[in-house]
Amino acid sequence: MSSYTQESAVTVLGLGPMGRALAGTFLDAGLRTTVWNRTPGKDRELVERGAVGTVSAAEAVVASELIVVCVVNYDAADAILRHPDATAALKGRTVLNLTADVPDRARDSAVWAAEHGITYLDGAIMTPAVTIGTPGAVFLYSGPEETYQRHQSSLATLGGRHTHLGEEIGRAAAYDVALLDIFWTAMAGYAHALAVAQAEGITARELAPFAKGIGEILPPIFEDSAQEMAVGTFSGEGNPITSAVSSMAHIVHTSEQHGIDAGVMRAAEGQARRVIGLGHGADGFIRVADVLARQALAGNAGQAAE
Amino acid sequence: MSSYTQESAVTVLGLGPMGRALAGTFLDAGLRTTVWNRTPGKDRELVERGAVGTVSAAEAVVASELIVVCVVNYDAADAILRHPDATAALKGRTVLNLTADVPDRARDSAVWAAEHGITYLDGAIMTPAVTIGTPGAVFLYSGPEETYQRHQSSLATLGGRHTHLGEEIGRAAAYDVALLDIFWTAMAGYAHALAVAQAEGITARELAPFAKGIGEILPPIFEDSAQEMAVGTFSGEGNPITSAVSSMAHIVHTSEQHGIDAGVMRAAEGQARRVIGLGHGADGFIRVADVLARQALAGNAGQAAE
Ligand SMILES: NC(=O)c1ccc[n+]([C@@H]2O[C@H](COP(=O)([O-])OP(=O)(O)OC[C@H]3O[C@@H](n4cnc5c(N)ncnc54)[C@H](OP(=O)(O)O)[C@@H]3O)[C@@H](O)[C@H]2O)c1
Ligand SMILES: NC(=O)c1ccc[n+]([C@@H]2O[C@H](COP(=O)([O-])OP(=O)(O)OC[C@H]3O[C@@H](n4cnc5c(N)ncnc54)[C@H](OP(=O)(O)O)[C@@H]3O)[C@@H](O)[C@H]2O)c1
Repeated sequence: MSSYTQESAVTVLGLGPMGRALAGTFLDAGLRTTVWNRTPGKDRELVERGAVGTVSAAEAVVASELIVVCVVNYDAADAILRHPDATAALKGRTVLNLTADVPDRARDSAVWAAEHGITYLDGAIMTPAVTIGTPGAVFLYSGPEETYQRHQSSLATLGGRHTHLGEEIGRAAAYDVALLDIFWTAMAGYAHALAVAQAEGITARELAPFAKGIGEILPPIFEDSAQEMAVGTFSGEGNPITSAVSSMAHIVHTSEQHGIDAGVMRAAEGQARRVIGLGHGADGFIRVADVLARQALAGNAGQAAE
Repeated sequence: MSSYTQESAVTVLGLGPMGRALAGTFLDAGLRTTVWNRTPGKDRELVERGAVGTVSAAEAVVASELIVVCVVNYDAADAILRHPDATAALKGRTVLNLTADVPDRARDSAVWAAEHGITYLDGAIMTPAVTIGTPGAVFLYSGPEETYQRHQSSLATLGGRHTHLGEEIGRAAAYDVALLDIFWTAMAGYAHALAVAQAEGITARELAPFAKGIGEILPPIFEDSAQEMAVGTFSGEGNPITSAVSSMAHIVHTSEQHGIDAGVMRAAEGQARRVIGLGHGADGFIRVADVLARQALAGNAGQAAE
């Protein structure tokens, strides 16, 4: 092992916007930071600021005990880590994979890592690259608690909130997928609303303050709905799901009347109408979550019966 | 006209949860409040509190200069208002229709009202019935400014924020549709996320604090995105739409792997991929709004060419 192998050293593999933000913040915190990226040249600014540039992932790996990987997806991460030279160099070290993908890819990587004597921790970054090094950053981790504890002080230099979600390696990715589900669905709704508004002669600037108001009522509604889901009551008093589908139909109609694709709302309305069809019309909207979750249970039961 | 016809008198037609909240709040503010509902008996509590109960809409109408209508949709509102007795009684009075529907129904009602010597104002209530009479209520209006001004003091007794959006009668409904588009799409995403999380062994209570965090980052992102839409720049720096579709694909995969319908996210991913297909892959996600809005322009151009 190289003399750089110490608690305050870290290697970052992958220098996209996020990898660069991570490496730059480690550097600022005084950690000995070694970097590598598939396409050369992306390390230039970091090397000028004191990072150690390398010509191969294997060379970068031997410089530190903690190897942070942050590339586009697990296909890319595997292409780097499962190259024989890199795999050999990783033996005895810790990989923290901050690459986003589905939970099963993290589970698969943990098996691979164990087979090669590599300690494996998975993670997800829930906030944009600009938040790294600020109190706004949000990091989720899953995998061996002891490994997380060992590197916690290095990771803390990235700023923000860090949560270890448990030992099950897929957990960080599962949270990531669920939270991005909320985020990207909401963004799709907002993009669509801006388009429908514009077709109705309402500018984005005019809609914005009211849209912000809608955004602000979501967090408390999310909390109340989670509570309903947890206890299994779905009170529709004052706002039954039948009233929701009536609004949804108005949105689809207005959108399509202007020639604007309403596929997202059509799908949402369809889910809600199926829930009504199952006899839950007097319940609140969040009954949709319960019915969707039962699809998973039905699937598992089907698998179990096979 | 009856002797009740005065500035401080109001008639409420429709006593669902929202109509009852409106009538109750007018009563509390000391307005002479006359009520009617298609199905008898819903006025009982209001009458005990001092409201004037009536046996027909026409009878209710003659009691006030301002008639507030709040029923399930415009089919219901039309069934009440366009009954010959009610229409005759409405002559010379003002209808404020707080019923939710598509903008074209409000436009159609304004034409009908003008033909029958009725002053017509449209409105939308953006917050739940429980907010009526509190600072949290949000009311939008459109139609003749002078009419709105004349009744503003009565309407102010309902509490909260009141905004007159302009004389174009469909404008309140158009805002309503666009804002509910954001709300219900976000709620569909949240319901789906709760289901996917549960399938991954994450309870609603565990996801809730992080979901709340996602909810909290939406309002500033909505504002920034509206700004991008307004100036027509769609910077994808640090977060291009290609990265969004990668996340979306992870969500679809994880959901369907559990047997959970991913139709909403499939539709959202499809819209985003078409935007990439049009050559906007390096742009930010909100370019989707621009491309959807162009569908409306293309439709209008097609109509114009016919
Ligand atoms: N950017 C953000 O704000 C943000 C926020 C939260 C989470 N994330 C997550 O962080 C991760 C990285 O995101 P990013 O924004 O930095 O950039 P990205 O565009 O998602 O990924 C770019 C990186 O992936 C590398 N890469 C792609 N294919 C590769 C392959 N086959 N072999 C080796 N390397 C490959 C690229 O190397 P080349 O330069 O050689 O192409 C580059 O280093 C993603 O999983 C993303 O979801 C990002
Ligand atoms: N509730 C809320 O929190 C809320 C929030 C914002 C906006 N709004 C809007 O406010 C309006 C009223 O909502 P709501 O919650 O009070 O109740 P609702 O369930 O939407 O509507 C019930 C009312 O509609 C009447 N109605 C239905 N069909 C009718 C017909 N053919 N002829 C005459 N009346 C008919 C009902 O009379 P019967 O009793 O005879 O059936 C009852 O008065 C809706 O447009 C809704 O979107 C409601």
